Amino acid sequence: MIFPKDADLSRALEFTIEMDKMKSIFRRSSIFDGSRRENDAEHSYHICAMALAFEKFAPEGVDLLRVLKMLIVHDIVEIDAGDTFAYDKNANLSKKERESAAADRLFSMIENGAELRALWEEFDDMQTPDALYAISLDRLQPFLANCLNKGDTWFAGGVGKEAILARMAPVEKGIPALWPTILELIEENVEQGYVGK
Amino acid sequence: MIFPKDADLSRALEFTIEMDKMKSIFRRSSIFDGSRRENDAEHSYHICAMALAFEKFAPEGVDLLRVLKMLIVHDIVEIDAGDTFAYDKNANLSKKERESAAADRLFSMIENGAELRALWEEFDDMQTPDALYAISLDRLQPFLANCLNKGDTWFAGGVGKEAILARMAPVEKGIPALWPTILELIEENVEQGYVGK
Repeated sequence: MIFPKDADLSRALEFTIEMDKMKSIFRRSSIFDGSRRENDAEHSYHICAMALAFEKFAPEGVDLLRVLKMLIVHDIVEIDAGDTFAYDKNANLSKKERESAAADRLFSMIENGAELRALWEEFDDMQTPDALYAISLDRLQPFLANCLNKGDTWFAGGVGKEAILARMAPVEKGIPALWPTILELIEENVEQGYVGK
Repeated sequence: MIFPKDADLSRALEFTIEMDKMKSIFRRSSIFDGSRRENDAEHSYHICAMALAFEKFAPEGVDLLRVLKMLIVHDIVEIDAGDTFAYDKNANLSKKERESAAADRLFSMIENGAELRALWEEFDDMQTPDALYAISLDRLQPFLANCLNKGDTWFAGGVGKEAILARMAPVEKGIPALWPTILELIEENVEQGYVGK
């Protein structure tokens, strides 16, 4: 393929080609009808759409543009590092190192990469209102997939109530109005035997 | 599933469930490695990532938040109306009507739906700098898929050089620095026999 002579423009095209790989990184979670597992591009799109739908319920002062940037890049390191199942303790030990090397490569591909890398790090630190809103959406999406599919990865992975509560905890600050429903949904799934032990 | 008592919050959840259907609407275009067709969620994610990468080359005064909102919602009407192949003249005759009915239903689902519907209409009108940048990304993405896959939908659909030029025309204003490369890429594909006649 022909590339432009301008170095930044050429790199934007190369980054575009790189981002296509998000469609081939498959996650544990299923799409909501349960028919197949979903990939990182689908998941990332879904939470961007959710960021628009839940905007009214975000913490005060949230900057939606920063949130969307976080959501768009939050999983791109998986192009090199692969998807790490949230409840896999061993894989999560090496996750930070693998993802940091991936970030070095991917974020250096584009001119505004340093800004996007800083947003990715802010997302991972889960401290600011923007990051808390973004991470809440990131956790709510597969949570709903499990609720709609008889516990799916919770049941298959033997993930218990306490682990789910810990995983969903950011929602209490990130989308506070939704927190009581999250607790009710967890209880409902425990009662129905859809949660691991 | 349990839904929250707050009506707006409940509708945000319902909209989230609705948006999952974007993963099951398959387009003519392939993912870049040519192994399979891509769906609307993947395509929409890809152009959001491209909006970040090409920001430096957007027209002056472009508002990236408005662009991202446009890109996130630009294809959601296809949940009801289905994907219409860009070069299918007959299907495009009924497209406007089908998509307008879909917009009535989908954008009324959420509290900020009127704002998002206005952005969707602005996108479709291709007049403002924000819309021109957004539509350029929307057209560039499948264009690149064709360039990377020996003409793919151009060749299979008998789509000729003039039709491709007309389809890509918004890029001249939306990402002006890239326009010469687009012209070169079209020539290259014509020469290699990857374009329809």
